[in-house]
Amino acid sequence: MARKSEADGNTIIKDLQPIFQEQEMTETVHAWEDHGYLATYTGKNGSFATVRIYPRGLVLIDVQCSDEPQEKASAHQILNKIEEKMQEILHNSIRQVKRLPALVRGAPVDRYWPTADGRLVEYDIDEVVYSKESPYQNIKIMHSKQFGNILILNGDVNLAESDLAYTHAIMGSGKEDYYGKEVLILGGGDGGILYELVKLNPKMVTMVEIDQMVIDGCREYMRKTCGDVLDNLKGDCYQVLVEDCVPVLKMYAKEGRTFDYVINDLTAVPISTSPEEDSTWEFLHLILDLSMKVLKDDGKYFTQGNCVNLTEALTLYEEQLNMLSCPVQFSKEVVCVPSYMELWVFYTIWKKRSGS
Amino acid sequence: MARKSEADGNTIIKDLQPIFQEQEMTETVHAWEDHGYLATYTGKNGSFATVRIYPRGLVLIDVQCSDEPQEKASAHQILNKIEEKMQEILHNSIRQVKRLPALVRGAPVDRYWPTADGRLVEYDIDEVVYSKESPYQNIKIMHSKQFGNILILNGDVNLAESDLAYTHAIMGSGKEDYYGKEVLILGGGDGGILYELVKLNPKMVTMVEIDQMVIDGCREYMRKTCGDVLDNLKGDCYQVLVEDCVPVLKMYAKEGRTFDYVINDLTAVPISTSPEEDSTWEFLHLILDLSMKVLKDDGKYFTQGNCVNLTEALTLYEEQLNMLSCPVQFSKEVVCVPSYMELWVFYTIWKKRSGS
Repeated sequence: MARKSEADGNTIIKDLQPIFQEQEMTETVHAWEDHGYLATYTGKNGSFATVRIYPRGLVLIDVQCSDEPQEKASAHQILNKIEEKMQEILHNSIRQVKRLPALVRGAPVDRYWPTADGRLVEYDIDEVVYSKESPYQNIKIMHSKQFGNILILNGDVNLAESDLAYTHAIMGSGKEDYYGKEVLILGGGDGGILYELVKLNPKMVTMVEIDQMVIDGCREYMRKTCGDVLDNLKGDCYQVLVEDCVPVLKMYAKEGRTFDYVINDLTAVPISTSPEEDSTWEFLHLILDLSMKVLKDDGKYFTQGNCVNLTEALTLYEEQLNMLSCPVQFSKEVVCVPSYMELWVFYTIWKKRSGS
Repeated sequence: MARKSEADGNTIIKDLQPIFQEQEMTETVHAWEDHGYLATYTGKNGSFATVRIYPRGLVLIDVQCSDEPQEKASAHQILNKIEEKMQEILHNSIRQVKRLPALVRGAPVDRYWPTADGRLVEYDIDEVVYSKESPYQNIKIMHSKQFGNILILNGDVNLAESDLAYTHAIMGSGKEDYYGKEVLILGGGDGGILYELVKLNPKMVTMVEIDQMVIDGCREYMRKTCGDVLDNLKGDCYQVLVEDCVPVLKMYAKEGRTFDYVINDLTAVPISTSPEEDSTWEFLHLILDLSMKVLKDDGKYFTQGNCVNLTEALTLYEEQLNMLSCPVQFSKEVVCVPSYMELWVFYTIWKKRSGS
């Protein structure tokens, strides 16, 4: 909370004592020889506080209490009084004071879904609207006031109803003409890509999603994303196969069936049960190789990559692209997907033409 | 961390003991009559841990240590072992396990800048590139790996180099023709609006920014935002007045000078020193009234509102709009500004025409 050049820990603890006494909290003090002090205060109602004073002048204060309004109010009061008292006793020597919003733990609705690069972010989630353990993954759809419903698979934020920017990016950012084209979607169970594609009068869109329970949840709770497209698994210009995409890709490859576009919207961490892959990278490689087999020579393959900060993972992915049995070229784009709280990289991949 | 229907706190503490003993940590246990247990463990190196067991089965574990790699590694090891042990002793009765990324406190670079709606978010900030206390406000420019440099005024994230979406929105989202027009910018010290406007061949842009130190910092560290436009305070089609905008607006109003566009890019919390306003709302009202006086009858006024979640503040703002001496109409748009980590509302305001 505060820093000063030379905090006399013992004096600070004595000066703060009346604040905790007023709340009828019991004090226990631990003093290290070279590492400062830890004072612990326990309240009658089950709340507690710790004051950790480091020798270099850093003072960290935590108050833990239940979410009863009265307890939360006292916690704030304690912190206000501590801040006031610290300003009083250390006056001009405080370099910085910072109070963080409370972490809410053990609540029925979990608001903390760290970013792909491991940062702590709190979402404005107020309700769990769908929660299932499917044979493939943990599926949650949670309501955010600003983003609408958010699909979270195995703890990863996949897509929110606010995230048309994701769908737009993975379809080629408006630069493609899908009219009369054959399109294959791998994954995409939220229905977002399918819904947007169908509006563009393609010849046929085939979507291969492994998890019926994702489709069921999104059909009901992600309607801003999927519209009515998941109400039927078959329409005039589309079909949804509820299957593992690996055997389907193999079958298409064997049959010599090809597509103008392949859009890979599989989850970042694979859930396929195919035996070939030992690791995420092998799975990625397998999907890429099979996809190139079913992609027309002048076709395009779109996929999401990773958050822009995971540069190592992005480089590894690009190395994979250079190791495919079919030589390819690629471009990438950085896009802001509202609910991700981090910038995301999307790839466009195409077959290298001879001489290029 | 974990939940089970009926946690026998005493047993859990006994079962976890060896984990802390192995780290040579000293235990202190506090038992409430009706509120469970608090076990505190202090390590020889100054680290400490608390295990709070609530009667309903919620167990919250915190480990606090310095940022020495070795201490951080032990903290992770402790948490891994606790998780493993808890799974072992409570096996199938654990309903949920959640481990949050560590909060980094007291570091030279502060990564936590809560959203306008009060949520805790961690930024990928790795460097403070500019830090000044001006006569008007605390100014920080911090480097984010993904967003580029971020301007933070009095603790509020104002604009990052990634945030062309903000500038685009506050200029009317590409729907305006600025060619040959007279434009007034209130605030806008980061130079983003000015830089984008000047590209559109306006007749004259006047920017009135109170804080020279914001201009100085942005000219040097926000060049992706402002380009070279702040290198001179006067150009072929623009001028920057380093002044409080209130007296300038009054002067223009008195002179009868008018503009095709007024773009209010002042900070949400006013820093003006004008005597009229007692509160944020009075300041907003004053700026709006004066702006309408200098706006042509068919002109447009653009401004940022607030985060989309602060619906009450937005409603209050819209009520102000209905109380202006000059009757106005307005429209609004919700925009995703990358570095904000929350959706933001932008307003377009214009004078009501007679009969409309």
